[in-house]
Amino acid sequence: MNLEDVSVGKSGETEFVGMSGTLTLDKFEAAHPEVADAILALSEGKMVLVFDAEGREEETDMMVASQFVTPGVIRTMRKHAGGLICTTMTAGTREKLGLPYLSDLIQGSSDRFPALSGLIPDDIPYDEVSAFSLTINHRRTFTGITDEDRAMTITTFAELAGECGEKEAGWCRQELGARFRSPGHVHLLTCSPWLLVKRQGHTELTTALTIMARLTRSATICEMMGDDGKARNKASASRWAEEHGYPYLEGKHVLEAWRAWSGY
Amino acid sequence: MNLEDVSVGKSGETEFVGMSGTLTLDKFEAAHPEVADAILALSEGKMVLVFDAEGREEETDMMVASQFVTPGVIRTMRKHAGGLICTTMTAGTREKLGLPYLSDLIQGSSDRFPALSGLIPDDIPYDEVSAFSLTINHRRTFTGITDEDRAMTITTFAELAGECGEKEAGWCRQELGARFRSPGHVHLLTCSPWLLVKRQGHTELTTALTIMARLTRSATICEMMGDDGKARNKASASRWAEEHGYPYLEGKHVLEAWRAWSGY
Repeated sequence: MNLEDVSVGKSGETEFVGMSGTLTLDKFEAAHPEVADAILALSEGKMVLVFDAEGREEETDMMVASQFVTPGVIRTMRKHAGGLICTTMTAGTREKLGLPYLSDLIQGSSDRFPALSGLIPDDIPYDEVSAFSLTINHRRTFTGITDEDRAMTITTFAELAGECGEKEAGWCRQELGARFRSPGHVHLLTCSPWLLVKRQGHTELTTALTIMARLTRSATICEMMGDDGKARNKASASRWAEEHGYPYLEGKHVLEAWRAWSGY
Repeated sequence: MNLEDVSVGKSGETEFVGMSGTLTLDKFEAAHPEVADAILALSEGKMVLVFDAEGREEETDMMVASQFVTPGVIRTMRKHAGGLICTTMTAGTREKLGLPYLSDLIQGSSDRFPALSGLIPDDIPYDEVSAFSLTINHRRTFTGITDEDRAMTITTFAELAGECGEKEAGWCRQELGARFRSPGHVHLLTCSPWLLVKRQGHTELTTALTIMARLTRSATICEMMGDDGKARNKASASRWAEEHGYPYLEGKHVLEAWRAWSGY
């Protein structure tokens, strides 16, 4: 399988150029070789590591396209990354599924639970909003936390996100409840409505990669921790990626490629 | 430090006998030696492993009294347990802080977000309710997910839970919002109102241990995963505990000790 196979899609090369309409595959590969490599890896179900940016979280997340998550992926993430294992969705998928931002759910319930109004997350040091939506478990999971359970929850969510593209909201919402319960053990994250235009977090960066790769528009990500109590630093995380044969991307490279690909 | 020092409390041996009023420390240690050992370990800030029960989750959780959580504890839990790192509170603390069950928050918001009514968690295989409350971050955390950040969130929450015992609800709720934001990266769990009478989950078992140990009434717990995609089985988890020098308890032993100690 090569990049052209997985990226061009049914309509041929013109579809790959996406929203900009001015970029050929050759030019894209030449201008953004790291991103092109990562797209190929993702299309084959492999893991990619993504650093956001200096001056932001300065964190590296492990990432896999959600549709390819296996129990082995969850095991690798929990053992070698150690953060929360989260699954992204586009703003469009969130709207179609009728899912709230968790912060809206909390703040909108402060009439019933007045203490909640005090918990407003208005002082996140590196951002204006929290990307968290609900936590979910597949209804056929047992505890929901095992590698098998989380993989089932995530791949089924990716399946639903994919199906939602062509279905009406009513159907999507009914299927959501038929397949999942909440609270659960997989954290859903929502992309900013303008994807990378307004926010350049791991949620948006990794989802943009799945879009450029023509995969189901959802990434599963987990923050890499260090042994010193802090996030694993960039040098150490990129060394780990090299030793284990995973592509390592910086957010700025994803952003440049996305701008060229999408035209905005 | 011995068990008597940590368990008897300021009022002498009579306080240890707690709610039953018929049990001396000697008798407790003789009748429940594993639990007495675990109480001593917890009082020294050490980790204890707790298996719930055959026919329930059949899961082993790592456990530390929340007041003693350090970045090293978080590191051990994420590397060697691998589940969600959660912090418990009693039903009394939850009420005083004005915190909702997450399932109540979700279901109570279905007028604003109709899709939520479909997600009702009415089919958990081993239980009737989900113990999840909100997720929180200390307001001085950065991302909230590092070992240092999670330890700060958890120990500060334990501090507040301890202070709440003697303070009015208004003060507790104000302090909650002054110290924490939500959503965050530490999952709060709520004990059943009758503690072990109605529910015998890890939330209740581990919180009961902190109460018998006369510590702040909050445990921090994390499910142990196996390398086979499932929960780590009891034989493997108890072998791990023995190799690493941690007490290993079964829920039924905690339950027997709690009944003797509390008298109900």
